[in-house]
Amino acid sequence: MIFYDYWRSSSAWRVRIALHFKQIVFERRPVDLLEDGGRQHTPAFRALNPLGQVPVLVVDDARGPRTIAQSMAILAYLEETFPAPPLLPSDPWLRARARQLAELVTGGIQPFQNMATLAHVRGLGAIDPDAWAGHFIARGLAALETTAAETAGVFLVGDAPSLADLCLVPQLYAGRRFAVDLTPYPRLLRVEAAAASLPAFVAAHPDVQSDARPQPKS
Amino acid sequence: MIFYDYWRSSSAWRVRIALHFKQIVFERRPVDLLEDGGRQHTPAFRALNPLGQVPVLVVDDARGPRTIAQSMAILAYLEETFPAPPLLPSDPWLRARARQLAELVTGGIQPFQNMATLAHVRGLGAIDPDAWAGHFIARGLAALETTAAETAGVFLVGDAPSLADLCLVPQLYAGRRFAVDLTPYPRLLRVEAAAASLPAFVAAHPDVQSDARPQPKS
Repeated sequence: MIFYDYWRSSSAWRVRIALHFKQIVFERRPVDLLEDGGRQHTPAFRALNPLGQVPVLVVDDARGPRTIAQSMAILAYLEETFPAPPLLPSDPWLRARARQLAELVTGGIQPFQNMATLAHVRGLGAIDPDAWAGHFIARGLAALETTAAETAGVFLVGDAPSLADLCLVPQLYAGRRFAVDLTPYPRLLRVEAAAASLPAFVAAHPDVQSDARPQPKS
Repeated sequence: MIFYDYWRSSSAWRVRIALHFKQIVFERRPVDLLEDGGRQHTPAFRALNPLGQVPVLVVDDARGPRTIAQSMAILAYLEETFPAPPLLPSDPWLRARARQLAELVTGGIQPFQNMATLAHVRGLGAIDPDAWAGHFIARGLAALETTAAETAGVFLVGDAPSLADLCLVPQLYAGRRFAVDLTPYPRLLRVEAAAASLPAFVAAHPDVQSDARPQPKS
């Protein structure tokens, strides 16, 4: 399995946690999203993902190598093909809630503050990109804090990590990058602290990836 | 099963198609997103979904009524609890591709042009909301057209409708509302035409819902 990744992409980070959590053997190929205007825009990478975004997973099946892009599609694939240890509860409603909380991040927050969106906002010249991102992060985290009240234990849904926590942790890290005040979300911060002690979350952290480097926010 | 819906919400429309496709009995409760500044912002509705968005599904389980929000979480729940007829292929990679194509819409296009985002853009006063929406719709549909080339048959993944088609059809309708030129996407238009002949897609169309009404674009 080949995994096209970038240390600080929050979408790719979600998948990295799952790969480590399920102890899947994979070859990591970092794509530098900043160098030369972004290596994700090269024809070679666009052939893997026409949208020019990480993550991309290349899986080997009977038909030869096949690509999968979009983080939640990759995570669903990993959950179905490597079911243990699970990243979803067994109860149908709790599974739905784990996915709902994940989607609050993947559809409700992250699209508004990813690199391509912020480049577009910056290009328009009329809006401050940080204020733009901050608005959507704060709105989404507030909904997450409230919605999680019904199911949270040690993690967002009960006492085992789920897809929801894989989305939460990178989103809180991004929130800090954009200087969003996180104190209104004590439940989310408790879950983040619990996740930080798990080996899969430690191994997947951006700062310990081979391509990590100090650099200005971008 | 109770389904909180709005005739022209593209997120809710996806779920409506699935409910009809799987012939699930449900009680539809329209939420008027325009009346009095939007009924989705009332305390009663916010208790169902703190984000104040449709769709919301209320399911009855052993613990009593339970809500599920976020369209892809609802669709995954319906697929798991009402597996026939399926809205995903059986092959793992094709399932992944159906989800990837769906996520191109749900994470890559729709968040940028939903009502709350456009209200925010309009409120900033510096960007034309239609141009804003048009940029993301065109970029996303182009990626969808290219990516679908690997799997498309009559529908986006093979010859049976999948979650990807449930996302495509409302997105093309929204594209027309924003006057996006759809001629660069002949594959997507062919799939849309095929879907239009299926009873579930006919029954789920916004214009035939009880709360449909002629009104200006908003």
